[in-house]
Amino acid sequence: MLKRSPLRAISLRIPAAPTATLSLRPHLIPRSSLSTMASVDERIKELQDKIKALKVAKQDASKEVEEMKALKAQQSKDKKDGPAGFQLKVPKGTIDHKPAAALLRKKIFATLEGIFAKHGGEVIDTPVFELKEILAGKYGEDSKLIYDLQDQGGELCSLRYDLTVPFARYLAMNGVTSMKRYHIAKVYRRDQPVMSKGRMREFYQCDFDIAGTYDPMVPDAEILYILIEALTALDVGEFTIKLNHRKILDGIFELAGVPADKTRAISSAVDKLDKLPWADVKKEMTVEKGLDEAVADRIGQYVGLKGKGREVLATLQADEKLNTIASAKEGLADIALLFDYLEHAFGVLDKISFDMSLARGLDYYTGIIYEAIVEGSAPPAPAAADAAAPAAAGKGKKAAKSATVNEDGVDESTVGVGSIAAGGRYDNLVNMFAEAAGSKRDKVPCVGVSIGVERVYAILEQRRRAEAAKPREKETDVFILSLGKEGLLPERMKLARKLWEAGIKAEYQYKAKPKAERQWAQAADDQVRFVAILAPAELEKGVVRIKEQGIERAAGADNGEEVSLDNVVEYLKARLG
Amino acid sequence: MLKRSPLRAISLRIPAAPTATLSLRPHLIPRSSLSTMASVDERIKELQDKIKALKVAKQDASKEVEEMKALKAQQSKDKKDGPAGFQLKVPKGTIDHKPAAALLRKKIFATLEGIFAKHGGEVIDTPVFELKEILAGKYGEDSKLIYDLQDQGGELCSLRYDLTVPFARYLAMNGVTSMKRYHIAKVYRRDQPVMSKGRMREFYQCDFDIAGTYDPMVPDAEILYILIEALTALDVGEFTIKLNHRKILDGIFELAGVPADKTRAISSAVDKLDKLPWADVKKEMTVEKGLDEAVADRIGQYVGLKGKGREVLATLQADEKLNTIASAKEGLADIALLFDYLEHAFGVLDKISFDMSLARGLDYYTGIIYEAIVEGSAPPAPAAADAAAPAAAGKGKKAAKSATVNEDGVDESTVGVGSIAAGGRYDNLVNMFAEAAGSKRDKVPCVGVSIGVERVYAILEQRRRAEAAKPREKETDVFILSLGKEGLLPERMKLARKLWEAGIKAEYQYKAKPKAERQWAQAADDQVRFVAILAPAELEKGVVRIKEQGIERAAGADNGEEVSLDNVVEYLKARLG
Repeated sequence: MLKRSPLRAISLRIPAAPTATLSLRPHLIPRSSLSTMASVDERIKELQDKIKALKVAKQDASKEVEEMKALKAQQSKDKKDGPAGFQLKVPKGTIDHKPAAALLRKKIFATLEGIFAKHGGEVIDTPVFELKEILAGKYGEDSKLIYDLQDQGGELCSLRYDLTVPFARYLAMNGVTSMKRYHIAKVYRRDQPVMSKGRMREFYQCDFDIAGTYDPMVPDAEILYILIEALTALDVGEFTIKLNHRKILDGIFELAGVPADKTRAISSAVDKLDKLPWADVKKEMTVEKGLDEAVADRIGQYVGLKGKGREVLATLQADEKLNTIASAKEGLADIALLFDYLEHAFGVLDKISFDMSLARGLDYYTGIIYEAIVEGSAPPAPAAADAAAPAAAGKGKKAAKSATVNEDGVDESTVGVGSIAAGGRYDNLVNMFAEAAGSKRDKVPCVGVSIGVERVYAILEQRRRAEAAKPREKETDVFILSLGKEGLLPERMKLARKLWEAGIKAEYQYKAKPKAERQWAQAADDQVRFVAILAPAELEKGVVRIKEQGIERAAGADNGEEVSLDNVVEYLKARLG
Repeated sequence: MLKRSPLRAISLRIPAAPTATLSLRPHLIPRSSLSTMASVDERIKELQDKIKALKVAKQDASKEVEEMKALKAQQSKDKKDGPAGFQLKVPKGTIDHKPAAALLRKKIFATLEGIFAKHGGEVIDTPVFELKEILAGKYGEDSKLIYDLQDQGGELCSLRYDLTVPFARYLAMNGVTSMKRYHIAKVYRRDQPVMSKGRMREFYQCDFDIAGTYDPMVPDAEILYILIEALTALDVGEFTIKLNHRKILDGIFELAGVPADKTRAISSAVDKLDKLPWADVKKEMTVEKGLDEAVADRIGQYVGLKGKGREVLATLQADEKLNTIASAKEGLADIALLFDYLEHAFGVLDKISFDMSLARGLDYYTGIIYEAIVEGSAPPAPAAADAAAPAAAGKGKKAAKSATVNEDGVDESTVGVGSIAAGGRYDNLVNMFAEAAGSKRDKVPCVGVSIGVERVYAILEQRRRAEAAKPREKETDVFILSLGKEGLLPERMKLARKLWEAGIKAEYQYKAKPKAERQWAQAADDQVRFVAILAPAELEKGVVRIKEQGIERAAGADNGEEVSLDNVVEYLKARLG
């Protein structure tokens, strides 16, 4: 029978009860608990010795063997799970953003915010959770992927799934009829995470939307221009924007004879044409979704049409049968007007591929729909990837699982391929909200785009690793170093203060008598550009020596520049530019 | 008996079931449901007419009256609750950040990030929720204020309550032994919200912490310097930093004779001395918490001591009895060293008040503790406040409840008073985490500060309103306006593109033939500095007229400047500076 060590009964488990703070006051915990782990180790060793002795004496050691096995099993569970019963980890599907990663994301956001502000965007933020009923039902089959908050006696809430529904709720709630807004924030989906593909449960979205009644296709054209501007500024590589129009799709379905109740199901089948051949998609339509084969074939005559320039548009505009369907005709007129703006006013039509197979899942689109696709980029050579792996967490680092998996767990060989942004026009969402909540509202038409900043991050991170450049984790420009036995801590602190007051980013070691090598090492590790050297002799002269790091020098070349302490701020400001 | 309108049975309720998207596809909803609201109105009107006719004919109208009352009651419930059963609102204790507010918060964050980076801070971000067991138990009596996620079959998670515990988890998880990090993010507490005092359930915290083993008091001094730098740069007004040391408090309690199991309770009583007189606090200690009166009196001899400069320190250092207690002696030595750094190296000792009544609730502090208090600022004169209320949500605006309550619902007469930042040293949190999870770790001592950015926001917002300046909600620098019947939409779009490509923030109206007055109104409302006027005659000459808005001009003064379209980018860049 399993004999548990009596020590095991006194657990370090941290209970959920509010008064349980014993664990944080070690002087109050019985000594035996604190040493549970150590005692298990000792007991195992004891048993090992005893078993050895018994076997030498050819005596029965089975009882001791059993106890030892049980303790070892417990110990390995503890090592995994800890005496308190939990692991130090982030929840499934989430990650910490370590400094280099967080800094890169901040730069991406800054680039996007600059572009949005250029176009008159106003920034908003909304709560991370909404009333459950506001989110429920808006996402079709995705509704089961919503995180709910526990019912703790108040309103039932859920974590936001995107930034579009909060925006529509904001507009309806405040009676706003026109607004250009951007919103960069995290959203939450209880997917099966696929960390190697960057599919997480918590991730950033970055949305720009124009709400309001305007002349047709003008804001639509500007949204597409903004998307192109953003992907270009972010330097994600070659990309194409697939474009279609719900009214044209609806028209094709009507012409083909798709029953109204199958529209959504057939749309989602069509949408798979970017990954599956027509034969498979047709099979899904007919076999799985019960569509008549003749109807499927008629759809097939259209959904293969795609291409840059105006050819596909011309083909569809010349299609007499299609033009008998009102919605198709309206959609085509929209596209023609849009193309004129994109080509003649904005000069960006060459980025657009008019693509009949783009259907997109969401129900609420009513006009144009689009998706930006980046061309695949070659994965980094395995040797470079391993050599480049930075110390992402400071002193600790998870080993990469394979040559192409980075330390966020993303397999970079798939990073450059696929969808990086998407959006469309959705004219009815706001007033449906308002009506459902009982307030009459005029329509507030909206068009917008959501940029997948996590994909952008993955592409830029992959490129940086391929260049084998270690990313900076901080922005310090001057490291203040002391030579000599004194340590000169007060002098270093005073100089730091002088530099901070002038807006210069400066650090020094928090040690009264720091070793010279360790200081040089810190300045090098942190890639700090300038070192300001304080030493007794120079201090008496009222000077400090400034050396620039990270540039090639001939052997025996200069040892830095002596600068008067009165001038050191101006000197450094000039050098830093 | 209540007779429900048969129309009521067909509800617009949006169920939680994932396949319910009918509400978003109006062409598929039975017409009667779509017109539920309108039909109730009609039916009520019908009944009113009928009742009138019956009464004129002196006939019994009671049935009709009853039905009408029921319909009206349902209608007012619908207006509040909506046919779908929900209100358009954010969850209790949360708010949207509308553009002016969001922009002001962004500026606050940018100021703080600049200061943190100056001191070598690295930025991280962590998931908004952690494993429930990681958060549970760390907050003493606050544990019941934690938001839990529903158990949906996976790990049990809770929303983070602060940024300190995630930081300690991050350090323990990654085996990091030294780090200077900042983290600006939202945290979640299921308090009773007091929106008029800015106490919300979702709010930003802004933390800077230094983790690692260094020489005593050096990082502590720098943290306090950073706090002072930050509050000064944010221009929150006059402030003082109350400072104390847990070891001194522990020493006072030991000397006074406080039993070990009452330490925390007595600490939290002492902490109330900033709001309650000693008599009340002593009563709480003795009556509520069962402390011996003599012990309370001995405490009372110390906790009234407070003041700037070195007097209090000198008094305590001269106290022979207190110096027989080891922890008190160590604490006093720490303070003495800290004061030397703050005075001689950093020149900021004048901001510090050494205050024996500062105790702070959290259990995990082990060294210095501090709290920054802003002096009260006078609330704005009621007339100015009403006049200044901006259109916060664009076209809709909630009416202020009183002269001093702003549109976030915060009563500004209390805004300037009280705590705006707090922190301390906590040396054991990281390794307690690690041990509880079963991995042995050396101590990772930490010291940090948390800045209450919501309080900073409230103070700055109050000041802005008192100045009656309407805040800008966007950053547009140039509004492109057309005169004449043509509308010149393509020309406006082309000029916009030219300006965007040069990084200039520009807008135009999305209308083919916009009215002149409406364009001028938009430029004025958005406080756009420059208007670029396109008109047929000027276009033929290849010029555009640039006018600067918002500056006083003598009557009949200049009508703007004609600028060639080839030069307009350079011209505007020069003017914008």
